[in-house]
Amino acid sequence: MYKNDIIVAPATAFGGAIAVIRMSGAGSVALLDNIFVGREPLAEAKTHTIRYGVIRDGERVIDDVVVAIYRAPHSYTGEESVEISIHGSRYIAQEVIRLLCEEGARMAQVGEFSQRAVLAGRLDLSQAEAVADLIAAESRAEHAIASTQMRGGYSRMLDGLRDELIGICSLLELELDFGEEDVEFADRARLSEMLDKVEGAVLRLLGSFRMGNAIREGVKVAIVGRPNVGKSTLLNALLQDNRAMVSEIAGTTRDTIEEMIMIDDIRFRFIDTAGLHETDDRLEKMGIERTERAIKEADIVIYMVEPSQQELELPELAEHQKLLVVVNKMDTINENDLGIAGAIYLSARYDDGTDKLRDALCELVDINGAYQGDVVVSNMRHAAALNDTLTHIHAAKRAMRDDISSELLAEDIRRASDSLGEITGRITNDDILHTIFGKFCIGK
Amino acid sequence: MYKNDIIVAPATAFGGAIAVIRMSGAGSVALLDNIFVGREPLAEAKTHTIRYGVIRDGERVIDDVVVAIYRAPHSYTGEESVEISIHGSRYIAQEVIRLLCEEGARMAQVGEFSQRAVLAGRLDLSQAEAVADLIAAESRAEHAIASTQMRGGYSRMLDGLRDELIGICSLLELELDFGEEDVEFADRARLSEMLDKVEGAVLRLLGSFRMGNAIREGVKVAIVGRPNVGKSTLLNALLQDNRAMVSEIAGTTRDTIEEMIMIDDIRFRFIDTAGLHETDDRLEKMGIERTERAIKEADIVIYMVEPSQQELELPELAEHQKLLVVVNKMDTINENDLGIAGAIYLSARYDDGTDKLRDALCELVDINGAYQGDVVVSNMRHAAALNDTLTHIHAAKRAMRDDISSELLAEDIRRASDSLGEITGRITNDDILHTIFGKFCIGK
Repeated sequence: MYKNDIIVAPATAFGGAIAVIRMSGAGSVALLDNIFVGREPLAEAKTHTIRYGVIRDGERVIDDVVVAIYRAPHSYTGEESVEISIHGSRYIAQEVIRLLCEEGARMAQVGEFSQRAVLAGRLDLSQAEAVADLIAAESRAEHAIASTQMRGGYSRMLDGLRDELIGICSLLELELDFGEEDVEFADRARLSEMLDKVEGAVLRLLGSFRMGNAIREGVKVAIVGRPNVGKSTLLNALLQDNRAMVSEIAGTTRDTIEEMIMIDDIRFRFIDTAGLHETDDRLEKMGIERTERAIKEADIVIYMVEPSQQELELPELAEHQKLLVVVNKMDTINENDLGIAGAIYLSARYDDGTDKLRDALCELVDINGAYQGDVVVSNMRHAAALNDTLTHIHAAKRAMRDDISSELLAEDIRRASDSLGEITGRITNDDILHTIFGKFCIGK
Repeated sequence: MYKNDIIVAPATAFGGAIAVIRMSGAGSVALLDNIFVGREPLAEAKTHTIRYGVIRDGERVIDDVVVAIYRAPHSYTGEESVEISIHGSRYIAQEVIRLLCEEGARMAQVGEFSQRAVLAGRLDLSQAEAVADLIAAESRAEHAIASTQMRGGYSRMLDGLRDELIGICSLLELELDFGEEDVEFADRARLSEMLDKVEGAVLRLLGSFRMGNAIREGVKVAIVGRPNVGKSTLLNALLQDNRAMVSEIAGTTRDTIEEMIMIDDIRFRFIDTAGLHETDDRLEKMGIERTERAIKEADIVIYMVEPSQQELELPELAEHQKLLVVVNKMDTINENDLGIAGAIYLSARYDDGTDKLRDALCELVDINGAYQGDVVVSNMRHAAALNDTLTHIHAAKRAMRDDISSELLAEDIRRASDSLGEITGRITNDDILHTIFGKFCIGK
């Protein structure tokens, strides 16, 4: 994957008026000239210019195309590149790519263009990952997180922290050189302060991961309650669809049902569950086990009751989980407040009051930080590297407290700095690269 | 749809690494400059150059983009145009198009870019239709037909015929001016010869429509025969799939099943049918009626028998329909030839011998003409216009034979020329334009 040969792939999807084929590598322009006929050869075209012509397979005209020329290093990959706009037919794309491969190009692997951009130093690893996230962005919040990351704010922040750690290390290593003399170049009070500072920054980043992950994967909302309180009816009302089977029979929903719904630019994953109650029925029991799992995994739990229900059997929640109590079937009674503090009253059946629920859900998920360009961690790999960093910083702090040798202290700090470096790719290996770029789409 | 305002639409599908947004109309570059920030304003960019920059919504960066500049008349529409390459996210595209519309552009209607190209005289109507066909092309044959048509070979041929008809008309109309003097500017023998020539050309074009339509819509192949001879098994073998339900019970297939299969770049539509036999069962009778309809509509009928079948009850076919006799279940007997002339012997169950059937099918459909750049009519609208042309030419020939007045003769010839002109759009009206461009995709 690291050769500088010429790679080619479709850069757009098919099904539109046009499609774009991207080719990169030294000699791309000359290669294309072998099958391109225009007013003059592309060889003479300057960077950032467009030429019109036809692609030919011998005498047979494959398509009228427009070619954009990028000369090294002024391209995405940093290499000489061309982008060929063709009529948006998959057949034509196949033919053009076949001809280019016959002339010496090869099909790019997924993510290979971005990988070349990283190897050429035009993007760091977290920026390249942000490119993939940006392409996948479906909401303003996802777009904002990916955009901040791609623009390098995140990388600069991480590199800043890493530079501080490396600075500490250098001083500690200097002490080792003077090992016999028992000098302390690294002021221990200052060192401890710096470790606190890095720890604080890493904790803030890790703290943003819950939001980042919720924005990316969706906020998990479990709808739970006794049988027949109208959980599936609520899901259908939110979906404005008849997704879940509903009936007046208690226990209609047996397995959990999950649906993604965007509310105010936030992606929610609603999980409709089997009603919670005592039962000996084996299938029902299995359903209730699944409900309990859904509660455990939820970010928000909607506990649903009907007006006649006398007591609330609220599920036990972890600290980060949030609860909303919903009183359904308000169409069946006249009173409007049953006195459950903070509860939302609605009629799922008549889709009356569900707006209040939508508002309440959005209030529980504050993503304004992301809109404002805050650095938000949304990538599992980054969260893991940050956790590693934290582990090593804690070890370093323990080493300082216990007055362990500078050598071991330096080792802990070095490891913390390496873990941070993995995120932007300062520290990397082929496996990581392969895993990251393997998730890209072709042509990127 | 005919204003010269600025129109915008996505030009590619979404789901790839990049997507392209196309904008056309005088002032497009200045409009884009309102939300684009690059090294210098786009206003200064020459035609056929590319600029890198960002699209901004106030302070918020929407995306890093690459903009291709086309100055009038050097663009697809003939107008000032820009193509904006963005990261391939639908969300980003929506945001960019929203901003452009806020600045004064409007969403293009389907086909509106091509319609502007036609109005600007950069394409004629049949060429614009060929662009749509080219985008939809899925095989070499479809590509060849659309490509020939787009390159204008078809238009030139039609315009040539039309010029001849108009020439005849002019001479006839000149006679009318000298009406009292009984002169004949148009030599009747020469006139008759020209009408024959045009008629011959139109007939040849109409003759190509069966092939053109088969290439475009697929060659219809009905698989028929007695119950339980293995028709569904053959369909599954050709599909290399278990599409059709098969069993040893006669009459398993009740309704017709249709599947598209590409063989050697030719699109076949195989229709598996209910077995033909005498029955009183109402459902079975309905199935057999459908089989009979499938036979009537087929281009090719595969009549399938098993080795034990003593006599062939071949269906009656029209002149243009072709027949293949297939003897199935050759795995059950030892003899290899049952003496049915021209029959293909195979075992659908063991997929043995089906290649011979594939070859035979392709031989029955000769599409070499299309590959060689022959003009092939594949468009229903064109076929209808050619039929109208023929009707008027026949009327003109009758008028000549019956020595009808030059005035009426000229009228028939004028109508024939108008019908031909409808194909390339020389003669047109809003309804036709609307129907044609309404079938385009957005952004074309």
